[in-house]
Amino acid sequence: MKIYGDRQSGNCYKVQLMCDLLGLQYQWIDIDILAGDTNNAEFLAKNPLGKIPLLELDDGRCLSESNAIINYLAFGSEYLPDTPYELAKVQQWQFFEQYSHEPFIAVARFINKYLGLPEDKKQEYLAKQVGGHKALKTMEVTLQHNRFLTGAQATAADVCLYAYTHVAHEGGFDLTQYPAIQNWLVNVSGLKGFTAMV
Amino acid sequence: MKIYGDRQSGNCYKVQLMCDLLGLQYQWIDIDILAGDTNNAEFLAKNPLGKIPLLELDDGRCLSESNAIINYLAFGSEYLPDTPYELAKVQQWQFFEQYSHEPFIAVARFINKYLGLPEDKKQEYLAKQVGGHKALKTMEVTLQHNRFLTGAQATAADVCLYAYTHVAHEGGFDLTQYPAIQNWLVNVSGLKGFTAMV
Ligand SMILES: N[C@@H](CCC(=O)N[C@@H](CS)C(=O)NCC(=O)O)C(=O)O
Ligand SMILES: N[C@@H](CCC(=O)N[C@@H](CS)C(=O)NCC(=O)O)C(=O)O
Repeated sequence: MKIYGDRQSGNCYKVQLMCDLLGLQYQWIDIDILAGDTNNAEFLAKNPLGKIPLLELDDGRCLSESNAIINYLAFGSEYLPDTPYELAKVQQWQFFEQYSHEPFIAVARFINKYLGLPEDKKQEYLAKQVGGHKALKTMEVTLQHNRFLTGAQATAADVCLYAYTHVAHEGGFDLTQYPAIQNWLVNVSGLKGFTAMV
Repeated sequence: MKIYGDRQSGNCYKVQLMCDLLGLQYQWIDIDILAGDTNNAEFLAKNPLGKIPLLELDDGRCLSESNAIINYLAFGSEYLPDTPYELAKVQQWQFFEQYSHEPFIAVARFINKYLGLPEDKKQEYLAKQVGGHKALKTMEVTLQHNRFLTGAQATAADVCLYAYTHVAHEGGFDLTQYPAIQNWLVNVSGLKGFTAMV
């Protein structure tokens, strides 16, 4: 299988990390968004939305959306429960990530790290801090009682939320306020097969 | 089981619709966000993020995030495939909805319908049009070939995307540009057990 991605993107890193935790083989194809790689007819035929990460199976079928991809890869493994409620809890955290975490923490990081916090983005950056801390507090409350987000066992929910949480400080979020999150980051990075973001 | 929600919210309507399509019994508890119903200790104990919809099972376990809830409800039914790739495709559309559709179309609708398009929100409203049309185009391309989003059979992906797409005109999106979407709306509303948003 092929993974189209950019190693610096947290959404793409989720897919790398899930593969490595599961010991899956894959071909990584580097995509340069700024060079227009997601905007040509060949790529848009694979994903009409023009976004990475994108998974292409050996038979040519494609799948987009980072969390759908990692759930597909983890299907049948220890990283995805097979009982309905526990499975839905994994998804709950993933939808939380896409709606209430990534749009604040990843965007604040982008403004700060990649754009250098320009004056005309400062207001947006500050607004992102509020939502980002709300998301981190929600995680902290849960991780005070649980080793991983859904309980004692690491799942695709942890892979999903690790991606942008472990670099949240690059978006101005001081994680020393969140000791349970800091422990959890150590737990995730200690998983067998774990690989870091480049 | 209990559903905490607001009948005017598309995210909450998804849960109502899924229950009705599946013929499930539930107790609906009306929540008034502006009156602070999602912000008291009792509600926050059920969902630390303080958002609706929220599902509470008879044994007290709770589940949040509209799409996680409808997937839980649809587990084992005709509305959720059980093969890994087809299941991941349903999720692909749902993550697309949360990241690339709802934040544009639902927010534009909110600004227009509930805030009355005030002058100081006009720029945000116009910016939302761009992203919203990108999402609608992505759906249109798929629905030109498929009766439903993932193929011949309606799934939880259709329930998810119906919620805000069928009221997109209230956010200023002219759906006559999207004939395949218009056909699909008719297909969804013709499903056995379908109930409209109030
Ligand atoms: N919800 C998507 C978000 C993916 C996303 O936003 N990808 C960015 C890179 S991190 C992208 O491809 N941007 C190019 C564009 O939107 O044109 C996911 O989780 O995969
Ligand atoms: N990603 C969530 C979004 C839920 C959401 O934003 N709910 C709104 C009502 S539509 C809410 O509870 N807002 C109150 C708040 O955020 O304080 C889902 O799909 O359930």
